[in-house]
Amino acid sequence: MAVAVKALFFDVFGTLVDWRTSIAREAAAMLTPQGIALDWSAFADAWRGEYQGAMEEVRTGRIPFSKLDLLHRRNLEITLKRFAVNALSEDDKRNLNLAWHRLDAWPDVPPGLARLKRKFLLAPVSNGNISLMVDLARRNNLPWDAILGAEIAGDYKPKPRVYLAAAAAFDLSPEACMMVAAHSNDLAAAAALGMRTAHVARPNEKGADRGEAAPTVPVDFGVKSLEELAGKLGA
Amino acid sequence: MAVAVKALFFDVFGTLVDWRTSIAREAAAMLTPQGIALDWSAFADAWRGEYQGAMEEVRTGRIPFSKLDLLHRRNLEITLKRFAVNALSEDDKRNLNLAWHRLDAWPDVPPGLARLKRKFLLAPVSNGNISLMVDLARRNNLPWDAILGAEIAGDYKPKPRVYLAAAAAFDLSPEACMMVAAHSNDLAAAAALGMRTAHVARPNEKGADRGEAAPTVPVDFGVKSLEELAGKLGA
Repeated sequence: MAVAVKALFFDVFGTLVDWRTSIAREAAAMLTPQGIALDWSAFADAWRGEYQGAMEEVRTGRIPFSKLDLLHRRNLEITLKRFAVNALSEDDKRNLNLAWHRLDAWPDVPPGLARLKRKFLLAPVSNGNISLMVDLARRNNLPWDAILGAEIAGDYKPKPRVYLAAAAAFDLSPEACMMVAAHSNDLAAAAALGMRTAHVARPNEKGADRGEAAPTVPVDFGVKSLEELAGKLGA
Repeated sequence: MAVAVKALFFDVFGTLVDWRTSIAREAAAMLTPQGIALDWSAFADAWRGEYQGAMEEVRTGRIPFSKLDLLHRRNLEITLKRFAVNALSEDDKRNLNLAWHRLDAWPDVPPGLARLKRKFLLAPVSNGNISLMVDLARRNNLPWDAILGAEIAGDYKPKPRVYLAAAAAFDLSPEACMMVAAHSNDLAAAAALGMRTAHVARPNEKGADRGEAAPTVPVDFGVKSLEELAGKLGA
């Protein structure tokens, strides 16, 4: 590589944490005692299904930048209505919305990041807000140097501004940064700006065999775990 | 306390790191081999002496927000001229400016923060830029949950926006945050917004007996070290 990579930027939902199993678990734990019985994975999928559309309102400028927690909350109202859950208290809805702060990392993530930290600056470049990233980091031992991403940039990936703001925060050119994600569209957007890219296969992200087992765009590295990435990067 | 404190926000220059000794050392190490002999502490004081005036240009809106690295660089040019150092290369000036990324922490800081981290969210709320904070954290083992402060807010302390942006990033009310600093004016600005305050005595910050041995404004806690603060906060 012409320019040495100094920083690794990580997508988080799906790439580092298993949102689907975690949200299904959190929703079941909170709603089952209230006599509510649902297909919890379907509930998680439906909630997540509103994600891109909500961010698109911000990306296109139809609404001002709003933290992902707020978008998640609007999407929760839509999802609860769809599943005919109509009697939750405000406190319960607020707490359920914070389920996104209690997601579990895939098992390779904490040891992989610990190795990568020896050689690179590490930051999430996620669409999640700062407080959400901090809670996930505390829960899962994610050793970030800084929390970058959508809230710093005031916009949502894959808008170029989000990637460029992250590189600028570290005083680095895009070429000195590598985006790590389980989603080809995220990596394509980063690569278009000159960043290096690494794809991590998460074939079961959205359920069995419903995730990217391999990238659909050219990438610098394709791996099955962060530990494999650490090995390939000599960390 | 009516509202439990959840996050501690830290001033950095003077409060956590000994900028004067470190800058004098770095300048001496770089310039002495070029045959330059100066009073290095006076050089550090003069460089730091331009600090508030440069930020005031931003605070008053006379210039757009600029990272502290850029202000430091302008102030370096002024300081070099004053000390009649006229022959430094661009590379040398760039490297000397990064001396602010190589400051050493006061000895109580790493162990104090390690204890405080068990009980509180921790973030710098400094006028230093993100990359500078990251370099100081790596050098001194400062276990931040996130890097907040001037660059996130787009303005400089003691403007209210900087403190409020930090609390908002953590989804906390000002009352749930405590500002920790060695400078009474910083604490007064935070307290005016409803934050809790802790003063750390750094009596030798600007040379022997040239620092705040005690606060000049009312504070919630006055301590001589972060370890003493950890003890008082039960961490």
